[in-house]
Amino acid sequence: MYREFRLFAGTSNPGLAERISQQLGVELGKVTISRFKSGEIYVHYEESIRNCDVFLLQSFSHPINEMFVELLVMIDAAKRASARTINIIVPYYGYARQERKSAPREPISAKMVADVLTTAGASRVITMDLHAPAIQGFFNIPVDHLTALDLITEYLNSKDIDHPVVVSPDAGRARTAEKLASRLGSPFAMMVKQRPAHNQAVITHVIGDVRDRTPIIIEDLIDTGTTIVQVVESLKDRGAKDAIVCATHGLFSGSALEKLDHAHIGEIVVTDSIALPDHPSTDRLRVLSVAPMLARATHIIMEGGSIATLFKDAGV
Amino acid sequence: MYREFRLFAGTSNPGLAERISQQLGVELGKVTISRFKSGEIYVHYEESIRNCDVFLLQSFSHPINEMFVELLVMIDAAKRASARTINIIVPYYGYARQERKSAPREPISAKMVADVLTTAGASRVITMDLHAPAIQGFFNIPVDHLTALDLITEYLNSKDIDHPVVVSPDAGRARTAEKLASRLGSPFAMMVKQRPAHNQAVITHVIGDVRDRTPIIIEDLIDTGTTIVQVVESLKDRGAKDAIVCATHGLFSGSALEKLDHAHIGEIVVTDSIALPDHPSTDRLRVLSVAPMLARATHIIMEGGSIATLFKDAGV
Amino acid sequence: MYREFRLFAGTSNPGLAERISQQLGVELGKVTISRFKSGEIYVHYEESIRNCDVFLLQSFSHPINEMFVELLVMIDAAKRASARTINIIVPYYGYARQERKSAPREPISAKMVADVLTTAGASRVITMDLHAPAIQGFFNIPVDHLTALDLITEYLNSKDIDHPVVVSPDAGRARTAEKLASRLGSPFAMMVKQRPAHNQAVITHVIGDVRDRTPIIIEDLIDTGTTIVQVVESLKDRGAKDAIVCATHGLFSGSALEKLDHAHIGEIVVTDSIALPDHPSTDRLRVLSVAPMLARATHIIMEGGSIATLFKDAGV
Amino acid sequence: MYREFRLFAGTSNPGLAERISQQLGVELGKVTISRFKSGEIYVHYEESIRNCDVFLLQSFSHPINEMFVELLVMIDAAKRASARTINIIVPYYGYARQERKSAPREPISAKMVADVLTTAGASRVITMDLHAPAIQGFFNIPVDHLTALDLITEYLNSKDIDHPVVVSPDAGRARTAEKLASRLGSPFAMMVKQRPAHNQAVITHVIGDVRDRTPIIIEDLIDTGTTIVQVVESLKDRGAKDAIVCATHGLFSGSALEKLDHAHIGEIVVTDSIALPDHPSTDRLRVLSVAPMLARATHIIMEGGSIATLFKDAGV
Amino acid sequence: MYREFRLFAGTSNPGLAERISQQLGVELGKVTISRFKSGEIYVHYEESIRNCDVFLLQSFSHPINEMFVELLVMIDAAKRASARTINIIVPYYGYARQERKSAPREPISAKMVADVLTTAGASRVITMDLHAPAIQGFFNIPVDHLTALDLITEYLNSKDIDHPVVVSPDAGRARTAEKLASRLGSPFAMMVKQRPAHNQAVITHVIGDVRDRTPIIIEDLIDTGTTIVQVVESLKDRGAKDAIVCATHGLFSGSALEKLDHAHIGEIVVTDSIALPDHPSTDRLRVLSVAPMLARATHIIMEGGSIATLFKDAGV
Amino acid sequence: MYREFRLFAGTSNPGLAERISQQLGVELGKVTISRFKSGEIYVHYEESIRNCDVFLLQSFSHPINEMFVELLVMIDAAKRASARTINIIVPYYGYARQERKSAPREPISAKMVADVLTTAGASRVITMDLHAPAIQGFFNIPVDHLTALDLITEYLNSKDIDHPVVVSPDAGRARTAEKLASRLGSPFAMMVKQRPAHNQAVITHVIGDVRDRTPIIIEDLIDTGTTIVQVVESLKDRGAKDAIVCATHGLFSGSALEKLDHAHIGEIVVTDSIALPDHPSTDRLRVLSVAPMLARATHIIMEGGSIATLFKDAGV
Repeated sequence: MYREFRLFAGTSNPGLAERISQQLGVELGKVTISRFKSGEIYVHYEESIRNCDVFLLQSFSHPINEMFVELLVMIDAAKRASARTINIIVPYYGYARQERKSAPREPISAKMVADVLTTAGASRVITMDLHAPAIQGFFNIPVDHLTALDLITEYLNSKDIDHPVVVSPDAGRARTAEKLASRLGSPFAMMVKQRPAHNQAVITHVIGDVRDRTPIIIEDLIDTGTTIVQVVESLKDRGAKDAIVCATHGLFSGSALEKLDHAHIGEIVVTDSIALPDHPSTDRLRVLSVAPMLARATHIIMEGGSIATLFKDAGV
Repeated sequence: MYREFRLFAGTSNPGLAERISQQLGVELGKVTISRFKSGEIYVHYEESIRNCDVFLLQSFSHPINEMFVELLVMIDAAKRASARTINIIVPYYGYARQERKSAPREPISAKMVADVLTTAGASRVITMDLHAPAIQGFFNIPVDHLTALDLITEYLNSKDIDHPVVVSPDAGRARTAEKLASRLGSPFAMMVKQRPAHNQAVITHVIGDVRDRTPIIIEDLIDTGTTIVQVVESLKDRGAKDAIVCATHGLFSGSALEKLDHAHIGEIVVTDSIALPDHPSTDRLRVLSVAPMLARATHIIMEGGSIATLFKDAGV
Repeated sequence: MYREFRLFAGTSNPGLAERISQQLGVELGKVTISRFKSGEIYVHYEESIRNCDVFLLQSFSHPINEMFVELLVMIDAAKRASARTINIIVPYYGYARQERKSAPREPISAKMVADVLTTAGASRVITMDLHAPAIQGFFNIPVDHLTALDLITEYLNSKDIDHPVVVSPDAGRARTAEKLASRLGSPFAMMVKQRPAHNQAVITHVIGDVRDRTPIIIEDLIDTGTTIVQVVESLKDRGAKDAIVCATHGLFSGSALEKLDHAHIGEIVVTDSIALPDHPSTDRLRVLSVAPMLARATHIIMEGGSIATLFKDAGV
Repeated sequence: MYREFRLFAGTSNPGLAERISQQLGVELGKVTISRFKSGEIYVHYEESIRNCDVFLLQSFSHPINEMFVELLVMIDAAKRASARTINIIVPYYGYARQERKSAPREPISAKMVADVLTTAGASRVITMDLHAPAIQGFFNIPVDHLTALDLITEYLNSKDIDHPVVVSPDAGRARTAEKLASRLGSPFAMMVKQRPAHNQAVITHVIGDVRDRTPIIIEDLIDTGTTIVQVVESLKDRGAKDAIVCATHGLFSGSALEKLDHAHIGEIVVTDSIALPDHPSTDRLRVLSVAPMLARATHIIMEGGSIATLFKDAGV
Repeated sequence: MYREFRLFAGTSNPGLAERISQQLGVELGKVTISRFKSGEIYVHYEESIRNCDVFLLQSFSHPINEMFVELLVMIDAAKRASARTINIIVPYYGYARQERKSAPREPISAKMVADVLTTAGASRVITMDLHAPAIQGFFNIPVDHLTALDLITEYLNSKDIDHPVVVSPDAGRARTAEKLASRLGSPFAMMVKQRPAHNQAVITHVIGDVRDRTPIIIEDLIDTGTTIVQVVESLKDRGAKDAIVCATHGLFSGSALEKLDHAHIGEIVVTDSIALPDHPSTDRLRVLSVAPMLARATHIIMEGGSIATLFKDAGV
Repeated sequence: MYREFRLFAGTSNPGLAERISQQLGVELGKVTISRFKSGEIYVHYEESIRNCDVFLLQSFSHPINEMFVELLVMIDAAKRASARTINIIVPYYGYARQERKSAPREPISAKMVADVLTTAGASRVITMDLHAPAIQGFFNIPVDHLTALDLITEYLNSKDIDHPVVVSPDAGRARTAEKLASRLGSPFAMMVKQRPAHNQAVITHVIGDVRDRTPIIIEDLIDTGTTIVQVVESLKDRGAKDAIVCATHGLFSGSALEKLDHAHIGEIVVTDSIALPDHPSTDRLRVLSVAPMLARATHIIMEGGSIATLFKDAGV
């Protein structure tokens, strides 16, 4: 169907790659990715990609540093195999929470990652719901920044939610929560927290009315789930109903899925931007697929045209 | 006092330059900055800067594009005059609100500005309260990102404010407002808005309790003042007392100062990061000087040591 | 007519843009260029330019720094919108007179401008009659350097000039004047000057014979007109007839047009590389259009082929 | 002792870092290196490094991709903390065996690693016995390429070896083996192999005389040990005595140490360029320390002078 | 035949250029390459190459620095003439023996050459049998690294050689000799040398059996021939028959061809990667043409597809 | 005298290097520069230059490409030997006449040379009387552009010249000639030429009065001498006395010195920017030394201070 176009998958999310290739009606390109006993990654494209527009799919999910370096090696091999352009699809862009220095002598790892991907040879990035939208600007190559907010909104609208209230779990997410509330036509509330130390948070109070309402908590990312559980319990204490927890990226580090299999959480809604277990430990999990959206973006990049319809809600 | 060190001022904020040089106990370097009839800017350093660590002070205030290009020309001349390092002090970094694409086919001007300053030859940036902290990561040269939040907190603490409540004027400022509330030990509220179009905002409701309280509105920047006035009136409608409006950068575009000379605003607190009129049209204006902080940062950069004490609240 | 090609105009010279698009038989692309109250420029392309070869027209005319930054923002937005190539048409390239250091600790602004345009993302430059031809070499992207000398020669040949003599207004222009004299088959003279200071000049004598002849003064650029008037009066003193003043770029800073509406100037011949007033204050002004030449260059760039016919006289 | 100098250790080889710092008579710099539950690495320097010459020690040992990314994050944080220079000591440089394409559409990972380290901000590399000496040229920053061959030679000379013969385990190592043979004044032999596939090797015959001699096998790196065991057995079949196996880098992937605890291996000599188990499973292992050499190199870099004495045998 | 494709030849090897163009069925592009009395090289393409994929053929043969700078000037002119891509065919890449520092304070000239070619504007390199395969990694542009080993193998197979033995003239060539031996199904031997100084070598002994056998000596490059003659004589002393000397690149510096017209050399087999005298002083010389291989590589680059069949033996 | 400073000479002008080192009171650094039989250049610094400010002296004189590549190799070796800065003193910068395209599909070799020197690792350039002053702007590293015009003026003033007239040999040199006339207080004349083809020129007439006067012809460079002889004869025809020919750079390509040993040339004044024969074929040659000026520039660069006094007449 597409001349001079190939889609290859890293090892982070083969299922999503398969779904995108089905949407596009093309076969996944053949690539060998292996690891030597030394841990060194070896990549070999099994078909010519000379003069091709190559798309490489890789999420920065567990184990993140392996997935990151694997993508670097894939890019290098594609560059040296004379690919015309190297388009990386990174549905979940890790290290995004280190996007600024909050203390002196810290890294800005999200920028280092962007620089390094560009140095290796990437010519375009397709990504989704970056933790901080300004990360787009960390790149000088074009970035197509998509959002799952439409997908999530549509799903929530299809349910008959009892007195919903959109809740921002912290001040940093207020903008996205405000946006979702506006779309759902529902009220808005926010948790007010203190952050005594890195990666810690203590909820002190809630502003906005949550009593007898169904809280819809919106995040870009669910990591350890600890914060979410605090938020849910805090909402429960204030008289809220069982919550619906939504996020684009379900990272679920450690025993997060177990923690979130919680009495006061009605449903956990994420996308397949990160590969999820085939048989998750909780049946509260609901997974929406971003494959149609990523396939459409890929199609537009190859054929020209505007990505605006996919783009209009960027900034979860 | 400092060997091989020179501080030069662009034309945007000579008063601040003077105050910094007094704090440092050095004289301002002599530089001619003129404009030809064609509008072209001409720069000539009147003393040798060979092998010197040069500091160039320029805020991106009105007229912003003139000030920006003037700094580029100053940097170029310093580079070609064999300065060892070129450190730019940009107390107010303009174009910071275009730090991500909120629609397709927009620029990320804040990144373009960062790249262009680096290309011209800047080797370090000292700036304050960037609109989005991730802009630090737009640079690959070191950025010392300072904040005026301490200065503002200290000033507010020195006043005896009647039942204060810190108000975030929109979702995007919630994090900073939360931080200020925590320092003042005061409650927190937030305006919930809709943004039907670029640079427009409609306040729909307020979450948190403001009745009979003195709202402290915290912004990084006061531009046209339109939003502030909307916020103040909206607060008044909800029974609040006269507001104190705080911001690091007093840009006051157009007739902002007139607009803000408003019945329900008790005081407008800004810093001298941007030059203000000697005789402002309102006596509600209170200006705190960032000269001591910038002088201290400069001293540390020259002498080594940690900028942490100046840094700890970055992220207004 | 042209697939995947778009021509957009900055705000400096909409008339020329319109004339070029008519010559090419294409419509001008739609782009919003606006300024916030803060003076910050905002650009939004109103149509998809993904994979397109984009041409951006902008002259560095009054107010020069605004026009320059506007072009930077246009380039950045085009780059991030995934344009395939970004070709900038800069009929008048400003800052060209600062193309070398004539004193220590000066900038070479013409180089800074070139670097910065490239950093922003320009992939090719089309320009005309650079003040110093070596400025081509300031770029590492291809430069198509056109000249209006053919156009001017043709126009002068179409007139029946009484005993013409081509006059170089200073030593720096001698090469171009020599070239024009050779084409017109007319004699040559030169003003000998002293330059006691920057932007100042005192004519001390003339070499070559001008008595009872019609001087044709050739410049790349008319700026304030002061020098031209000195030259004309000096020629008059030596017995010359009324002069014809020719230049590619009619910048006419300040009250230049008024000054040049002078008894001893018969005609002022410039091109529309810079937008001119619809109703100029003098009827001595004659404007030749470079639109056909720029349209042809654009056509060649899109379709391949040699630009040599447009090029052969570069170096006015 | 050294002003403005700090040595920090990554987590790959803390023992070596300690030994180098003792040699230098300085304390190791304080740095926090931690991992979030998401696997993301966090780095924080606990002391000011502004204007310092920073040395970062990290070997690319197991798990290699973690150690590599950790170093990238350390470099980024040092750059943004205004270190004057960032000198990376990488005693073992991994991915060095992928230093050229041996088939089409492969990466040259060793170059990608070099580019990426430079992009992150490294200003100098100190490394040892690169698998291919040309990897020095992959960098445009200075590389101090040291060798442990002197150390190994000296150790072997201190033993009374019965009829030694230096054996090159394959054609690629012939140059180093020849060099060692020359220093020891002993004969030379070489295994001739076939490489039917990547990371595989079949010994077909041996050239040179090994009967009744003690083979000294010299490698840059011991990885899985499989090849070494084949070589040893093949030598045994040809009447050789028990072998002494030498290498700069003891990677010992998987169960290599168990495999090498082999009847026909008399001793395994490596350096501490890679951290080794405190209580290795074999008492055949002999570890020589490169700490004095790395300390001396660091000293020379800080104080000036020639590294030639450390350098003269580079190219194991 | 090929739209938008042009092949131009530098002055180093016009015969090879002619043969490649015949293979491709295209005419050689017209280019003027001349030298001013000052020695400065002037290049002028006589036909438009705008938007073309340009291939420039140049070997770094005598006089090497002239040929190298000539190629730089050709690349610069092509870049400025708006070539779409600039593909350099460098059959013999000089300075390859300075690919690493073997002593401190030496250059790595092979890297400098790679960087400089890229800076000038090359977008791809096609080369053959690099002295060190890792030189591929000195480039970040794609490198197609071909080999003449197949060609040489095929030629040797077509002869009926009496008891052949492949001989590596030194340890550095062992890998290639092993490869050739394996293809010919012949035994293998190696000269063991000492290198007391730069460009000097003393053979001390031979390992492997050469008596009454025909030695096939394989090199990447024959330079002065001195080493070859030493090897041949040393082999003769050990009872070998007359040798066949093979190399991809016949540089034949100084009186090399005379030296190699030697009693104990049966044949000298090289390719036309470097231009050879029309009437060489010896009839022992046999030249194989690489034109078909380079033509095929060019075809594949223009038309897409895999270069693997040409590539599979890279690494002579 | 200078700590951490070394001056090394390429092979182009050892006499000048010696004179500069004497002026500075330092010894020339020891460096081996040799050529292999293959023509490849080898460089080895014989003393440590780690952390040193290195100055490399090389003029781009005959054979120009050899001298240019030699400098590249010297720079590369210095960079890899960890020099702190690499300052190149290029008294005569060749390829400067190819500083713009005068026809399509030509190179701008002067820019290529600048880029390539920077890529190799130069950190500063000291040069003299560039053919086009804008070449300064081809570099982004600092350029100290000196002039010999003072030296020449002083020498001419010391002579008692009979009715001098400064003559510009063509339009391109008018600016410099005007400047010299002004300093000497003498009249000015100019040759008017046609350039039918590259490197050719036909003088058609002279403007200004030369009869019975001593023409002082000023050039940046004397190359083949052909033009000078034409100018001199043309002046003689118009009644002028014997000429004095002045130039900064005496390249004297081919038999230029013989040609210039001409009846109507009184004296040829050049500097030692290019090495001249010890016993030139003409006693009309007068050589002024630039060693004091270059020594002073070097001193200033090392010690700080303004180079303005050396600089004030740049732009011959």
